[in-house]
Amino acid sequence: MRIDIITVLPELLKSPFEASILKRAIDAGLVEVHFHNLRDYTTDNYKSVDDYQFGGGAGMVMLIEPIDKCISGLQAQRKYDDIIYMTPDGETLNQGITNQLSLKENIIILCGHYKGVDQRVRDMFVTKEISIGDFVLSGGELGAAVLCDAVIRLIPGVLGNETSALTDSFQDNLLAPPIYTRPREYKGMKVPEVLFSGNFPEIEKWREEQAYQRTKQRRPDLLED
Amino acid sequence: MRIDIITVLPELLKSPFEASILKRAIDAGLVEVHFHNLRDYTTDNYKSVDDYQFGGGAGMVMLIEPIDKCISGLQAQRKYDDIIYMTPDGETLNQGITNQLSLKENIIILCGHYKGVDQRVRDMFVTKEISIGDFVLSGGELGAAVLCDAVIRLIPGVLGNETSALTDSFQDNLLAPPIYTRPREYKGMKVPEVLFSGNFPEIEKWREEQAYQRTKQRRPDLLED
Repeated sequence: MRIDIITVLPELLKSPFEASILKRAIDAGLVEVHFHNLRDYTTDNYKSVDDYQFGGGAGMVMLIEPIDKCISGLQAQRKYDDIIYMTPDGETLNQGITNQLSLKENIIILCGHYKGVDQRVRDMFVTKEISIGDFVLSGGELGAAVLCDAVIRLIPGVLGNETSALTDSFQDNLLAPPIYTRPREYKGMKVPEVLFSGNFPEIEKWREEQAYQRTKQRRPDLLED
Repeated sequence: MRIDIITVLPELLKSPFEASILKRAIDAGLVEVHFHNLRDYTTDNYKSVDDYQFGGGAGMVMLIEPIDKCISGLQAQRKYDDIIYMTPDGETLNQGITNQLSLKENIIILCGHYKGVDQRVRDMFVTKEISIGDFVLSGGELGAAVLCDAVIRLIPGVLGNETSALTDSFQDNLLAPPIYTRPREYKGMKVPEVLFSGNFPEIEKWREEQAYQRTKQRRPDLLED
């Protein structure tokens, strides 16, 4: 899988891709991630990537021309399955979307910044608009990092133990059950006895029940689907 | 405002705090962000922060003892308004929660990693559990960065132009309207004429109508509240 990220702040994105699972996936050649600094595609002497909005109002708008140059250049080299724009008014990211995206070959992620991109960028290029949630960030960069992490960890071979991803929250519309590790007792707080029973069907039953109860209490909406 | 972030991967979190708005807010003294590496609070020779889960199953569980030492040490120095655990089964982050958190004085953010923390950490210390969305990440670090960005940009003085945050999506339960900047025409695509009318009440009316239509089409759930 190849991911091209277009941004005005590539330096903001650096560290999440240089640590942990993303780094391992990149080092193992399971995914390629390329950053494109929009300023490298500007056409004026000031390297402008944004300008005031027509009609007045607070906040700058990202210019269409550098984005067009960057995307068109990439598209001349290979076919992209999706051009994704990170924006708070996009479709809300969920595990189903990440599962689908993990099967793609080449995707472009365009990070909005300032007030966002000129609407014509969205009309002309973007095939999918994604929001990571109902809150506003200073830019799409962290959203892009979140999307990459969520997607890349699903690529076969990225996680050490593949069953681990399948027992995560949301993969079966249930939240995960409580988990415990040593010590058996800590400042008077004990681990539930069933986990020491050695009776694995019993443990499985307890976990399913706990997962169901937690979901019912915290996220009844997940049980309605 | 002071934010203490507890993590096994402080290096993953670095760059988002060294760029853009977060850096400016920190440099201006509007917020202090401190990172605590859990490995500095381990008690054994192996600097263990995790162990196998009781009862069997894939994925490691974060130990209670180093977390207890770290949190108790911080609490001995100052009072915290909230101890937040980033976890996919927490309350889903929204703009209302970020607004509330932006008014706090001191908060701790505990990043889950691996399969998550021992349940007793949640029972003993955590006052608020937050998820950034219905998807699974390799750790709570990116979630913590997202939460910090969403909260810090709301602290008065952080954004250059304060009206800018108030016209963002979600602050009034409406998505933002389309925005445009120069050129007036690009490859045959024109900016809507109304934006050049100079008639500001007319422009405002057009934007409100567009915001309403976009919300109705994309996120009718926001209009129901």
